[in-house]
Amino acid sequence: MAKTQITAEPGLPQIIITREFDAPRDLVFRAYTDPELLPKWLGPRDLTMTVKEYDVRDGGRWRYISTDAEGNEYGFHGIFHGTPSPDAIVQTFEFDGMPGHVCLETLTLEERDGRTLVRTVSVFQSVEDRDGMVASGMEHGVRDSDERLEELLAELTAR
Amino acid sequence: MAKTQITAEPGLPQIIITREFDAPRDLVFRAYTDPELLPKWLGPRDLTMTVKEYDVRDGGRWRYISTDAEGNEYGFHGIFHGTPSPDAIVQTFEFDGMPGHVCLETLTLEERDGRTLVRTVSVFQSVEDRDGMVASGMEHGVRDSDERLEELLAELTAR
Repeated sequence: MAKTQITAEPGLPQIIITREFDAPRDLVFRAYTDPELLPKWLGPRDLTMTVKEYDVRDGGRWRYISTDAEGNEYGFHGIFHGTPSPDAIVQTFEFDGMPGHVCLETLTLEERDGRTLVRTVSVFQSVEDRDGMVASGMEHGVRDSDERLEELLAELTAR
Repeated sequence: MAKTQITAEPGLPQIIITREFDAPRDLVFRAYTDPELLPKWLGPRDLTMTVKEYDVRDGGRWRYISTDAEGNEYGFHGIFHGTPSPDAIVQTFEFDGMPGHVCLETLTLEERDGRTLVRTVSVFQSVEDRDGMVASGMEHGVRDSDERLEELLAELTAR
């Protein structure tokens, strides 16, 4: 099964992330949108994630805070554009620490023989912003999150 | 004074539009954010623009409808990201007729000797979406709007 692939082509204000999960699409969609499940997988393992708001509808806001072992807090927020569905989730993404810098994310979920391919296309206001996101250590967070999501989905399907 | 320049490089999910106006930045900002002024310039001359909602604050929604001579209505909407200011306006942009297709716009206003350079960077979910926007006849609307804005600003500064 394909592990996480992260593509950031030079000169393009874009990051594409793909990952296949051994779970049906509806369950993967639930993991991406259920505020009870999100803290179990979203973010690196060494941070604690707390959902503050997750209003999964057109125009609804989401907001969460990641806290490290020293108690430092990192807040993230955004707005859903269109009604999220297993076909697609479109949302903006902002780090509280960089106001004015907004990223637009499009997630598509495609089921193949009971497995689900998640494709995330993130576009940035500039190539510089995209490069900043890559330099921030995003890759570590993405890979950790995907491993944790794989474990959670295995747990949920075993029930 | 530089007229409207529209740049859409091949293979980039982006459109950059620049235009200089013979008016101070605060006035240009007002024209971009005052729902009383917007119908006087935004959109092609042959359409009537009606503001339905214009909540100029972080997370606020905007929505307007353009009506042609035959009464056909074209709706557009989006959400402000961050508090709009004369420095920058960041907003999403969606055409009602193409749900799921979202564009992220960043407008910066820079004053030089009493004139204001407006730079709009629009990023799209894909190059195909960007090409679709170019093919939609956007250029005509942008050029008409900018000419009308120039006239409006001249009128407002003459008062």
